[in-house]
Amino acid sequence: MPRILAITGGVGGAKLGLGLAQLLSPEELIFAVNAGDDFTHMGLEISPDLDTLTYTLADLANPDTGWGRRDESWEFMAALAEMGGETWFQLGDRDLALHVRRTDLLRQGASRTEAAAIIGRALGVAFQLLPMSDESVRTTVHTDRGALAFQHYFVRDRCQPEVTGFEFQGLDAARPNPAILSCLDGVDGIVICPSNPYVSVDPMLHLPGMRDALLAASAPVVAVSPIVGGAAIKGPTAKMMRELAIPNTAAAVAAHYGDLLDGFILDEQDKGLEDALGVPAIVTQTVMVTLQDRVNLARDVLAFVQKLT
Amino acid sequence: MPRILAITGGVGGAKLGLGLAQLLSPEELIFAVNAGDDFTHMGLEISPDLDTLTYTLADLANPDTGWGRRDESWEFMAALAEMGGETWFQLGDRDLALHVRRTDLLRQGASRTEAAAIIGRALGVAFQLLPMSDESVRTTVHTDRGALAFQHYFVRDRCQPEVTGFEFQGLDAARPNPAILSCLDGVDGIVICPSNPYVSVDPMLHLPGMRDALLAASAPVVAVSPIVGGAAIKGPTAKMMRELAIPNTAAAVAAHYGDLLDGFILDEQDKGLEDALGVPAIVTQTVMVTLQDRVNLARDVLAFVQKLT
Repeated sequence: MPRILAITGGVGGAKLGLGLAQLLSPEELIFAVNAGDDFTHMGLEISPDLDTLTYTLADLANPDTGWGRRDESWEFMAALAEMGGETWFQLGDRDLALHVRRTDLLRQGASRTEAAAIIGRALGVAFQLLPMSDESVRTTVHTDRGALAFQHYFVRDRCQPEVTGFEFQGLDAARPNPAILSCLDGVDGIVICPSNPYVSVDPMLHLPGMRDALLAASAPVVAVSPIVGGAAIKGPTAKMMRELAIPNTAAAVAAHYGDLLDGFILDEQDKGLEDALGVPAIVTQTVMVTLQDRVNLARDVLAFVQKLT
Repeated sequence: MPRILAITGGVGGAKLGLGLAQLLSPEELIFAVNAGDDFTHMGLEISPDLDTLTYTLADLANPDTGWGRRDESWEFMAALAEMGGETWFQLGDRDLALHVRRTDLLRQGASRTEAAAIIGRALGVAFQLLPMSDESVRTTVHTDRGALAFQHYFVRDRCQPEVTGFEFQGLDAARPNPAILSCLDGVDGIVICPSNPYVSVDPMLHLPGMRDALLAASAPVVAVSPIVGGAAIKGPTAKMMRELAIPNTAAAVAAHYGDLLDGFILDEQDKGLEDALGVPAIVTQTVMVTLQDRVNLARDVLAFVQKLT
């Protein structure tokens, strides 16, 4: 089997990540995870995308919400509300332990990468989960209501403000995770999972040197379109594209990634578009409802990577 | 009714505090609370004595443990253990909300006094709960196993190490809570509740200027002995006294407070000792099992204060 680096953001990324994890061993699959969504909430270091991926691979994820753990209880949140605390970001009792543990590990001097590894291992995840950087990068969403920290835009304000642009704060002082850079030489394929290009993938691509390192890698870079038939499966991608006056099409996503791409994967609903992309493309079912859907897409992705090698 | 300042530490202090709170209005009763037990645990600011008093007055306390909330759940703790976190200090799901809320308030710039008031009010406590200082003072217990942070000695090591002395770190930079000092002129009595003299009351008495301010107050200072018939009702007071080669008697407690005292309250079991103390004393039932016991003792304390005025 090929050695794959999977670039993931939120729920879509975790879905394909799980499919890949069914087919590949921990020696064959490494995850590079968006950390632009990370934020400090009530003193707790929260990494929503990393957490979603960790819970998904640990078989602890809540399939209904796309965040947090399943079989969760909410006693903490109820008591916090009673005490006048902030309740716009929901923290289940068991989920909270992850954030407290990470915060504690970071305070003790662990890097974000080390904290992710310790927590992943404790939850039974054998795959390497590499935050995009050990430095802090925070996505700011510029909107008609002003500049919003990403989680304020995404969770508190439910993506309702109209987006005018994005800013990734801390980029200048951040470096790509050295473990991601050092694996680029040895991988056979780089898969950009179907995550939001603007807020889940771009923070990583904008890290100083990251895009160049991906361009320099000999392995093909393949992206799976998060836009299917003009809509996003989940999340605000299509809404953001409309607000930014970008056609909300899979082709616009491919154009956004530009020369980074060696291949693009479209959904069956977008059949016919593949010849107009200027990059090799395949069409398959990218909408993942069942575990089998995830595995099937992962298999198609791997076959496409192999063909491009 | 007289206006009373109650100096409290842990469980014993909260018990008499509740008795006093049954008899006095929030205008008549102010609490000065030990904060030497405070510690930062996994980034959370925890104030065990203040929390015990707050929960007790809010009718949320766990009567079986003497700490935490009743009807508590432990999902957070189970998940934290699963992730390899520190589990020696038990944090229930709802109790945790208090610590997260306080930590958040302090991070936002609230003083310890303001945080205590906000949380107290939210839980329905109308009484002023004044931490002994807005600055941080941390009790270190010197033992045969070395210097231990108080909660390490008390909770993690279950008071097993042999005590050789105490140290209150941060005293030099700490001032007594200005709200405590400013109420001293207006109170009719100062009650040192039956708390551990060495670790629950001494941190407050050792604050620069605190003892002098209490001596200068015209109101009588009355202490209730935490030692009954040579034993402590709860906690390590008697064990500490033995280890420090102090007779584990109520008389030794009175001698410890020395010229601060205008009156001392002994348990019935120590009847006969009252004339040897060198300070006016009464004998009553100080062991508080039921709510009525708490109210009865509070009534006796108030009558004694009135007699001494």
